[in-house]
Amino acid sequence: MDSVSELTTERLSVYLRCLTFLESLNEKTVSSHELARRFHLNSAQIRKDLAHFGEFGIRGVGYDVSRLRQHLVTTLGIDHVRNVVIAGAGNLGIALSNYKGFNSGGFSIVALLDSDTRKLDRKLKSGIPVLPANSLASVVAENAVEIGIIAVPASEAQAVYESMVDAGICAILNFAPVQLSRREGVKLRSVDLRINLESLSFFLKHAADEGCDELGTGETREE
Amino acid sequence: MDSVSELTTERLSVYLRCLTFLESLNEKTVSSHELARRFHLNSAQIRKDLAHFGEFGIRGVGYDVSRLRQHLVTTLGIDHVRNVVIAGAGNLGIALSNYKGFNSGGFSIVALLDSDTRKLDRKLKSGIPVLPANSLASVVAENAVEIGIIAVPASEAQAVYESMVDAGICAILNFAPVQLSRREGVKLRSVDLRINLESLSFFLKHAADEGCDELGTGETREE
Repeated sequence: MDSVSELTTERLSVYLRCLTFLESLNEKTVSSHELARRFHLNSAQIRKDLAHFGEFGIRGVGYDVSRLRQHLVTTLGIDHVRNVVIAGAGNLGIALSNYKGFNSGGFSIVALLDSDTRKLDRKLKSGIPVLPANSLASVVAENAVEIGIIAVPASEAQAVYESMVDAGICAILNFAPVQLSRREGVKLRSVDLRINLESLSFFLKHAADEGCDELGTGETREE
Repeated sequence: MDSVSELTTERLSVYLRCLTFLESLNEKTVSSHELARRFHLNSAQIRKDLAHFGEFGIRGVGYDVSRLRQHLVTTLGIDHVRNVVIAGAGNLGIALSNYKGFNSGGFSIVALLDSDTRKLDRKLKSGIPVLPANSLASVVAENAVEIGIIAVPASEAQAVYESMVDAGICAILNFAPVQLSRREGVKLRSVDLRINLESLSFFLKHAADEGCDELGTGETREE
């Protein structure tokens, strides 16, 4: 699976959302062309991505919506629950713990951790406990935590990363705006939210060249 | 610029980060191959993307780091400041207002807005004011706000979207986990943070098949 890039897994996630939506409409089959048309995707890319995972539509019929959806759930490994821990119980950590999709459908947040003892008393609406940062190793061991989320300030992120790896976590999602030095065998994904603003700025710039209404309908286009 | 997809603008942002890093090391020139090797990108894709915006490296020399960096800043439209407003002063809105890169280098957050009057007294560390939701139109007009960020619960997101569009904003970043019905001429970008967890899950699944250490060094690979 070394040849599968993060961009491909992101597209699988997008296809999954489309299929979940179609299933909610009780649609039974969909072709790659129809998927592409309705969700502004690229039909050749869809066929290539799905064929890579052994899924082929039937000519003139397309894909079976429910079956393909289940296949993507399995491929993405979200057909069983993976436990997650969040380091940092500040605004970001709490927002992430409340974020729909971070604590459902394949993921369960078992705790937030913070080194600030004043935060340990916080009762979160979600009911997720806030525990001392130094309990990381025991929380990971007792709950078989597989994924760690770094939501601490940039200055603390590397130390948190090391603690997570030492505790046995091998998939880490980093929200701190800092380049982490990586340890072998550990999957790291860093989220750079600024890219979203830069993308809007790009379109504003070219909208300004052409008038805002010329932007089109605001849809995402794939090349 | 209709043919430029959001994926392309995201790659421009990535190249910009790489060049900013190289400039900080005082490096003067870089080839597409060197960029690709150091930052785990695809050299053919780099050349194609940059050629699209009129930038060509010189054979045997490569790109001028500072000049290319400035060119990307201009292309992304972040060479002057765009004002931003955040709807929602909950944990997410406050976390975003503190987020490095949302209030610097081309973007300035002028206010958070909230319909909960109890939040209006909040003194944020950033010094950004929390204003009543119904002051949106005047805040946008007085500050020539170009970008709106939706950080309210899903149930309120559509109404906030409509208010932003009515106030004259034509680029909106949505963090609420809901499909918004769009108005023509308005650029909408929705952030789905769950995709990041699904991507980690995918790698965990295949790591489990092969042993965690077989994951490699955790680098992102482009196809």
